[in-house]
Amino acid sequence: MRFASDTAVRKASDRRGPVAVYATDIRSGWDVGGNANGGYLLSIVGRAMQAATARPDPVTVTAHFLSPGRPGPAEVTVEVVKSGRSFTTAIATLSSGGSSEGEATRRAMQVVGAFGDLAGRSAATAGFQRVEGAPPDLPPVEECPMLVGGEVFPPPFMNWLQLHIHPDDAWFATGRPSGEALVRGWFRLGDDEPIDTIGLLFAVDSFPPAIVNAGVPMAWTPTVEFTAHVRARPEPGWLRCCFRTRFITGGFLEEDGEVWDESGRLVAQSRQLALLPRP
Amino acid sequence: MRFASDTAVRKASDRRGPVAVYATDIRSGWDVGGNANGGYLLSIVGRAMQAATARPDPVTVTAHFLSPGRPGPAEVTVEVVKSGRSFTTAIATLSSGGSSEGEATRRAMQVVGAFGDLAGRSAATAGFQRVEGAPPDLPPVEECPMLVGGEVFPPPFMNWLQLHIHPDDAWFATGRPSGEALVRGWFRLGDDEPIDTIGLLFAVDSFPPAIVNAGVPMAWTPTVEFTAHVRARPEPGWLRCCFRTRFITGGFLEEDGEVWDESGRLVAQSRQLALLPRP
Repeated sequence: MRFASDTAVRKASDRRGPVAVYATDIRSGWDVGGNANGGYLLSIVGRAMQAATARPDPVTVTAHFLSPGRPGPAEVTVEVVKSGRSFTTAIATLSSGGSSEGEATRRAMQVVGAFGDLAGRSAATAGFQRVEGAPPDLPPVEECPMLVGGEVFPPPFMNWLQLHIHPDDAWFATGRPSGEALVRGWFRLGDDEPIDTIGLLFAVDSFPPAIVNAGVPMAWTPTVEFTAHVRARPEPGWLRCCFRTRFITGGFLEEDGEVWDESGRLVAQSRQLALLPRP
Repeated sequence: MRFASDTAVRKASDRRGPVAVYATDIRSGWDVGGNANGGYLLSIVGRAMQAATARPDPVTVTAHFLSPGRPGPAEVTVEVVKSGRSFTTAIATLSSGGSSEGEATRRAMQVVGAFGDLAGRSAATAGFQRVEGAPPDLPPVEECPMLVGGEVFPPPFMNWLQLHIHPDDAWFATGRPSGEALVRGWFRLGDDEPIDTIGLLFAVDSFPPAIVNAGVPMAWTPTVEFTAHVRARPEPGWLRCCFRTRFITGGFLEEDGEVWDESGRLVAQSRQLALLPRP
């Protein structure tokens, strides 16, 4: 249960006015080149927002990435801005650093999100349904090359999850980018740890950038903004994921993601705005 | 220049700590059934964030809709959370009401956004470009039925802009929903007022919901969250827009938008999470 324990938060005693404060630790091993993966950080913030809103599911969450989060003690402040009948909306800030002497605390991430309870929102109760789309068509897990963590690429946190990439998109195994800005694959946490809706915030940011398959050299694409919509609680088992970039313009790119669960249901959508790596 | 003047803000004298305060008025005529259009409200907030960050363009902006904004005096508070080399990130709150006796001020909208300068980010300077997609193929403006504001539908604010809908998507003119959750059309502000990147925040939320063409009865789809990415400053002239919903599940739907300018360039993308109208 490494993911659950490595994203845990504990309520700090020093409540500041309307703001609830949570202490946490950014654990090492979840990083890419020394900076914690964005989805991992967002999951930590999600746990604090879940606690502060007393609602279990992150229905929609947006993160702005302000500075890299490095392993060490960190703090999440959460302010509830509206508590409604179905959703509670909150803003949250993740600050890290301040651990070693002379190091200042820095804001790493600014988040806004609406939390609710997705358990009751099944097809039977939620009225009209329409699905234009399907899970990505993936060969069986064992026929999809697995990303194994290395020192730089694949990043070390790959060892704490199971990512199996569609053979057509697995440039790291074949040596050939597909030519399409598309990455599809299977996702599961390490040790078959069950995933909850907070874990989906990690899943949607755990794949290598789709643009690698479009021939953009492998590089860090700094995320400016990341939004996830969680549509349903995932059934236990493997998730089928698909990430695609359609527009690389003006130095920006968007990446859109879809995550489907074992039962064939869409459980999350994501979109991020990132910066093109400088040549 | 109605749009520019109706979204204007003025700096209030009472700065509260790190928070800059702007006074504004939510003008009547921009509403849908008495509640101001979300994109109009977001444009007001955008003007305040533009002023507080001293950066001209809303590169990415996310709004959570907390309560309806009704015509009358309103206030925007803006806190800059990071001022970087290329972008300044801020959070902002729109509060309205409090004008008539005994009426409390209510938070109408919570926003987070990153502002920058898109002028320098042309194709020539921003490196690798890749565009998978094209502006919607629209017949000439005069062959596309125009939405003219009425009392309820089309909403009154249609009279302050020019929306011409693709004949295939113009159920209001033909009496036949197309069967596809898609609305395409031409957009221009009223009186050919030029549009800036703040105006794009309005454009992306000015069309009727795409799901009307999928046979969902015309109804208010309350927005939970709305994110716009502004990719470039629009050239003067008509904008070509396209809005689509692919997934209506669990009582939620997303709507994705694209806005292209006269030069054939993608200038904005949007995605919102909304609630399905209750039957």
